[in-house]
Amino acid sequence: MRSCEILSVGTELLLGEIVDTNAPFLSRELAALGIPVLYRGTVGDNAQRLGEEVRRALRRSDFVILTGGLGPTADDLTKEVCAAQMGFSLVRDDRALAQIRDFFARRGSEMPASNLKQADVPDGGTVFYNAHGTAPGMAMERDGKCLILLPGPPHEMQAMFRESVLPFLAAKDMGVIASHTVRTMGIGESALAEQVSDLLEGSNPTVAPYAKMGEALLRVTARAQTDADAQALMQPVLAEIRNRLQPYIYGIDTDSIQQAVVYALAEKKLHIATAESCTAGYIAGRIAQVPGASAVFDWGVVTYANTVKQNLLGVQAQTLKTYGAVSAETAREMAAGALERSGADIAVAVTGVAGPGGTEQKPAGLSYIGVADRRGVEVTRFETGRDDREYNRNVTASRALYLAWRRIQNIGEDK
Amino acid sequence: MRSCEILSVGTELLLGEIVDTNAPFLSRELAALGIPVLYRGTVGDNAQRLGEEVRRALRRSDFVILTGGLGPTADDLTKEVCAAQMGFSLVRDDRALAQIRDFFARRGSEMPASNLKQADVPDGGTVFYNAHGTAPGMAMERDGKCLILLPGPPHEMQAMFRESVLPFLAAKDMGVIASHTVRTMGIGESALAEQVSDLLEGSNPTVAPYAKMGEALLRVTARAQTDADAQALMQPVLAEIRNRLQPYIYGIDTDSIQQAVVYALAEKKLHIATAESCTAGYIAGRIAQVPGASAVFDWGVVTYANTVKQNLLGVQAQTLKTYGAVSAETAREMAAGALERSGADIAVAVTGVAGPGGTEQKPAGLSYIGVADRRGVEVTRFETGRDDREYNRNVTASRALYLAWRRIQNIGEDK
Repeated sequence: MRSCEILSVGTELLLGEIVDTNAPFLSRELAALGIPVLYRGTVGDNAQRLGEEVRRALRRSDFVILTGGLGPTADDLTKEVCAAQMGFSLVRDDRALAQIRDFFARRGSEMPASNLKQADVPDGGTVFYNAHGTAPGMAMERDGKCLILLPGPPHEMQAMFRESVLPFLAAKDMGVIASHTVRTMGIGESALAEQVSDLLEGSNPTVAPYAKMGEALLRVTARAQTDADAQALMQPVLAEIRNRLQPYIYGIDTDSIQQAVVYALAEKKLHIATAESCTAGYIAGRIAQVPGASAVFDWGVVTYANTVKQNLLGVQAQTLKTYGAVSAETAREMAAGALERSGADIAVAVTGVAGPGGTEQKPAGLSYIGVADRRGVEVTRFETGRDDREYNRNVTASRALYLAWRRIQNIGEDK
Repeated sequence: MRSCEILSVGTELLLGEIVDTNAPFLSRELAALGIPVLYRGTVGDNAQRLGEEVRRALRRSDFVILTGGLGPTADDLTKEVCAAQMGFSLVRDDRALAQIRDFFARRGSEMPASNLKQADVPDGGTVFYNAHGTAPGMAMERDGKCLILLPGPPHEMQAMFRESVLPFLAAKDMGVIASHTVRTMGIGESALAEQVSDLLEGSNPTVAPYAKMGEALLRVTARAQTDADAQALMQPVLAEIRNRLQPYIYGIDTDSIQQAVVYALAEKKLHIATAESCTAGYIAGRIAQVPGASAVFDWGVVTYANTVKQNLLGVQAQTLKTYGAVSAETAREMAAGALERSGADIAVAVTGVAGPGGTEQKPAGLSYIGVADRRGVEVTRFETGRDDREYNRNVTASRALYLAWRRIQNIGEDK
């Protein structure tokens, strides 16, 4: 098992201007390959500090993957610093140059002169040509250590990793880490952990709880020589977790609650409709994240104003007047109206207070979620307990999707 | 000027299971305080490696802020490791304990025994009580070095930073870094950089370009003893940037294009409506991110299916048949229909191919964006050039918002 370390390069990262999604991506990919990542670091576009970090990483890890700093500007120093560190000289690469020129030509423009230096690669290293941008990636190996340099833009980096770096790494001999993620909703992280506290003590497989935007997850991980051996180690533990937490589990290795919803709908050949007030598009947007969503979802409305709830969903003026827009009664009529007007098999409707601010009676984070199908409407009162607009909209959308998913489970079974 | 370093603690980070938003948040807050962050690191819940990282950080930085690992489980070691490193012993804190018990009581449950250890704090350190969760934060100071420990959940960490750590840090004497971000759309990062290449050479203020999900940004940053001095240094540079890039700039220090749209609508007392096919809720969802959006937005529809485009928007069957759902003509009728049916002042409609996959004629990433107001409808063909569903949906939503923003600029001016 060889160790790896990830270094993200860029002053914009240290300033917090962008969130680093490259390092988590690489962490997941390397874990799947059985390569443990024990450290990650971030350093700015500064030759001295970058050099120090590269030296230190090479001392304690076999592989170091760097992302960023391969661009055309004078700031971009990663390649130069790494080549100096590993004793490689840089040479112009004709194929990389042709690709860069071609990249600009396809966009109908000339290659700016500043991009020329992106075609320089380490003499004697491995070049990863870039089909999705201008900077080639590269690997430099010496004395059993290996530096891998990848461009910073996530889509270029991810494509290059999958197309070029995976085959490069696969040639090396390694064990395997396998893992499964058990996803639950409707139970807190602490309560979840207590229910499986004895399982958290294990070392292979390990079981680790964590919380994520209104969800509680359990990650089960095993190490072995082969994937089959790792899977065999995990089976009894997964069975026990399923046994103890059944009512809360909406999926194992499911990407997300919206994926669970779309797959469940597709399996039963059902359509869903959405009617959103406070979440305003987040439920529809999440459903449509799942490729193939168009087979199960074709009707959604965002109804912020009362008149729009009346016009698009048929909510009664009297209901809005008597109970208010944020009420169980309004959620019920929104869901029923969405079901009827869309012709879908199930409809989910949300009305609530996203914040910032609310009242004592209707605080930020309060919502009513209606789920309607041919059997009727169920309304659930939900409170996040926070005055955070984005959090409330996201977590409320998740909860609405979860309630829809639960309802989909028994559609057709009572007929 | 004292230096700071950020250490994110948690095996789930190294496994890539969650994306670290704490470090970028802290980076931004510290930059605003004038405290440079030169390194960031991530380490797992492992006493030995965490101890090494803390020692190294303390050697090269005056302040080290750690997030994560203050939870109730056996995995959570940050406090213990840091106290040992700094020579502090841990003592039970009655106020922290009362707050933790109260946190559970408000949720109608008993405090699990495992949470008891969260009430332990360093004897002689500073405690940051947690009004939003269970783990108190803390600071330990010795020999001019300072460790600050904050809980991992972002909302707890952010609230604690603002409520407790800022006043703690403000007591120290520091200079100021100020910065402004110029946000543009419709121009690539390289082209943008070439237009201001001479300005990128400056050292105080510095000007740095970067790209972000279909946008190109310029960050202008100055250091001085006071904020007023820093602002004065930046003014001529900002004026020059405005002068050269005017047509592309939609805001300076604007949070996002959706904020620019909502503010522009509010200023002119206009309402917007949305009709979305491929973006399916992303435009509505982004508009509603802006607090106060309900004053300018109350009607939105998600129309995946052709029949729904006909029913909710009045798109002609003949148009769909002749030109297809992804066409300029359909976008035009969607926008016109949304304007009419919503009664809004401006409507934005999108139809396109999110992917994965498309055809040669209608590749993934192709969309038609219609913007309608009382003067008529304008349709723009837009291509992202990528087969990446989430990227396409996000970037297309951004572009639609930008086109709406441009249209809002001159509403009323030609009357």
